[in-house]
Amino acid sequence: MLKSPAMSQLSVRPYKGTRDFYPEDMRLQRYIFEVWRRVSERFGYEEYNAPLLEMTDLYRAKTGEEIVNEQIYNFTDRGGRDVTIRPEMTPSLARLVAAKQQELRTPLRWYSIPNLWRYERAQHGRLREHWQLNIDLFGTSDVSAEAEVIRIAHAVMQEFGATEHMFTIKLNHRELMSYIFGDYLQLNVDAAHRLSKLLDRKNKMNQDAFKNQIAAILGEKTDQFMALLEVERLRDLPEQLFQSQAAQQLRELARVLHNTGVTNIHFDLTIQRGFDYYTGTVFEVFDTNPDNPRSIFGGGRYDDLLSIFQAKQMPAVGFGMGDVGTMNFLRTHELIPSLSSTTQVYVASLDPAYAEEAEHVANQLRDGDINVAVDTTDQKIGAKIKTADKKNIPRVVIVGAEEAKAGKYTMRELSSGEELTEDIAGLRIILTNDATRRLNI
Amino acid sequence: MLKSPAMSQLSVRPYKGTRDFYPEDMRLQRYIFEVWRRVSERFGYEEYNAPLLEMTDLYRAKTGEEIVNEQIYNFTDRGGRDVTIRPEMTPSLARLVAAKQQELRTPLRWYSIPNLWRYERAQHGRLREHWQLNIDLFGTSDVSAEAEVIRIAHAVMQEFGATEHMFTIKLNHRELMSYIFGDYLQLNVDAAHRLSKLLDRKNKMNQDAFKNQIAAILGEKTDQFMALLEVERLRDLPEQLFQSQAAQQLRELARVLHNTGVTNIHFDLTIQRGFDYYTGTVFEVFDTNPDNPRSIFGGGRYDDLLSIFQAKQMPAVGFGMGDVGTMNFLRTHELIPSLSSTTQVYVASLDPAYAEEAEHVANQLRDGDINVAVDTTDQKIGAKIKTADKKNIPRVVIVGAEEAKAGKYTMRELSSGEELTEDIAGLRIILTNDATRRLNI
Repeated sequence: MLKSPAMSQLSVRPYKGTRDFYPEDMRLQRYIFEVWRRVSERFGYEEYNAPLLEMTDLYRAKTGEEIVNEQIYNFTDRGGRDVTIRPEMTPSLARLVAAKQQELRTPLRWYSIPNLWRYERAQHGRLREHWQLNIDLFGTSDVSAEAEVIRIAHAVMQEFGATEHMFTIKLNHRELMSYIFGDYLQLNVDAAHRLSKLLDRKNKMNQDAFKNQIAAILGEKTDQFMALLEVERLRDLPEQLFQSQAAQQLRELARVLHNTGVTNIHFDLTIQRGFDYYTGTVFEVFDTNPDNPRSIFGGGRYDDLLSIFQAKQMPAVGFGMGDVGTMNFLRTHELIPSLSSTTQVYVASLDPAYAEEAEHVANQLRDGDINVAVDTTDQKIGAKIKTADKKNIPRVVIVGAEEAKAGKYTMRELSSGEELTEDIAGLRIILTNDATRRLNI
Repeated sequence: MLKSPAMSQLSVRPYKGTRDFYPEDMRLQRYIFEVWRRVSERFGYEEYNAPLLEMTDLYRAKTGEEIVNEQIYNFTDRGGRDVTIRPEMTPSLARLVAAKQQELRTPLRWYSIPNLWRYERAQHGRLREHWQLNIDLFGTSDVSAEAEVIRIAHAVMQEFGATEHMFTIKLNHRELMSYIFGDYLQLNVDAAHRLSKLLDRKNKMNQDAFKNQIAAILGEKTDQFMALLEVERLRDLPEQLFQSQAAQQLRELARVLHNTGVTNIHFDLTIQRGFDYYTGTVFEVFDTNPDNPRSIFGGGRYDDLLSIFQAKQMPAVGFGMGDVGTMNFLRTHELIPSLSSTTQVYVASLDPAYAEEAEHVANQLRDGDINVAVDTTDQKIGAKIKTADKKNIPRVVIVGAEEAKAGKYTMRELSSGEELTEDIAGLRIILTNDATRRLNI
């Protein structure tokens, strides 16, 4: 027998670090997803998905130690398998591509909007479940891949209403970092690794502490390195670094991006990106608001991830853009549009005697592809109108004795109070035109 | 340090009992979700969502012992909480409603399309992850609630192209069953419980074994009870049962449904529904194909679920319709439409010299809201056309020397081989008209 928990233990709150989406919250999330989908598909990307659970070994390979040791939701299933709720989508994507590598034709352009889980500690104010647009282009090794993916990132921001002065795209290159750590600073592997992880935490730590820890690794080369971190244009790098292959690739990328109207790009050696699998260009999009200059999202090139399946190498570039960072950005810049219900009209009976007539009116409108909710409860008509208003339904049609007799119904626009009286055909035309206008078709 | 797994252990297959969704699989799932959303919103339902994980106690209350003991994915999180990947959506929904019961105005019409997890054993051929449309109406205690929810179920089937002879809606009532078990058959609580669970398994077991187990519970009343199970019309019930309040409610429900064009309904005492929380009408939709007469989905009334939060009672009716049963039904009846890529056109450079020109053409089409993928690889043009075809992209535009010079481009319709030559403005008009036609606007 099951032990029934004491009822008072059952909380109505969501699990720690997660969000409930009531219809008014869902409207904003749907808006974000719609923009993501529209722009992704505009660039010829097709949607895919993968199971929520993966074998934990998939993440042990290249996701990064901190995430796997401290942040993933893993457990043993009833069959003894060590499984994980996906903390990121890229390993699943690599698995799908590796499984059908022979038959898939490149370039592959895929996107997905998965929910992802990480065990964040509450004091960080971070969320444990979030959704993320994943854009990935497989099969192109030249910078046209980076250029396309970064243009999509830029186009998504513009589709949300952002102008170039609201955000900046910072670029770096993993091979340039290797070159600096090795040839330029002559660090051993361990010191290079520590320096890389330190750079990744730069914006989250006190800047004096940051410099002290840099000094502990670099000693007398500290000032030389700190100067590099200030460089915002490739041509301001020391000549030896500027002439490196990686820097020249970034230069070509910047040229292509400028040609297609992406001009808010900057070079920044502090951009690291957390995942171990990046192999080339990395980029990160920042809010330029001085009160809130945080990273919104980022991505990069990962040409070697398929090797974890012993599959043939396949060049790849992608990014992941989270819903939480997106919402914060939209709020900061007041870019959230006013979002009304998907229900176009609320059909309310004047009293219970007209319940069937109200249902009939609602069904006739639905037959004309109008979204209709009906209220045949015994509440007063004023209460019904208030219900529609609270649900952000923009219009109410009232059905009573006169209306039933005449076959003409009064529709009230709740925002303006305007009223008009029409038969079913007339209401359908008005409501259809309105829906078409809202779709911008 | 992390122990890196031997690479050969990393499988490219999805976790047991789950599915990968490549773009061609995703198209079908998106089609199903679009139909679900369209019909739900047509009836004034608004989308909501809840976190994937809930405290396990939420399901211990009313989900049912078999599911909680044997089928849920539960584990202890890093903070020591016993959490579960949702096996169904209704308890989360009840939690959301209970949390804001004071401010939410009824009737509440909500829908969601969550993914759900159950640990199914592989030999059953069942899936561990599936998606499910959840439709729920809160706040209406009369049969107009059942009538609306069942009409939506019926409308969803019709929107998929099903006619009434392809499926049947079977109705039963929990209170009628209680009346039969108690007043009519005079069973004690334990025998009634065993009989109910046995009925729930009827269609999954050998019919002789079923009758033997019935006889073990009912003895000499077996034939009397077996006769009841054959009844398909309420009026064929013994008078005592027909006059019960529950049977009369079902009769009124059938009348209302017939009036709104839902005529493929039948009474069936074997319909039980697995969840413990149902309190009144229950219904189940069956495929009528004689080769495959399985249950597709079902639902019912649950007026008492909010009591698990010690919240005020609130009447509710809902159903859950899974993607797997839906796909099986659509396949059986050949109702799956031909689904092409969201990418409308594939812009291919004739050779790498025209890569930038091809990008330019693609961008100009995108500025006209056309979905475009571009192929500037060094593959031959024949290979590029084959790539478009394999991706189900319906058209190819080829960009070479002549086209670049003339500003006119040849577009080929891959299904027919038809070609036409137009400038950018001309291509935009053709592609926009096509998209509008496909949306039926």
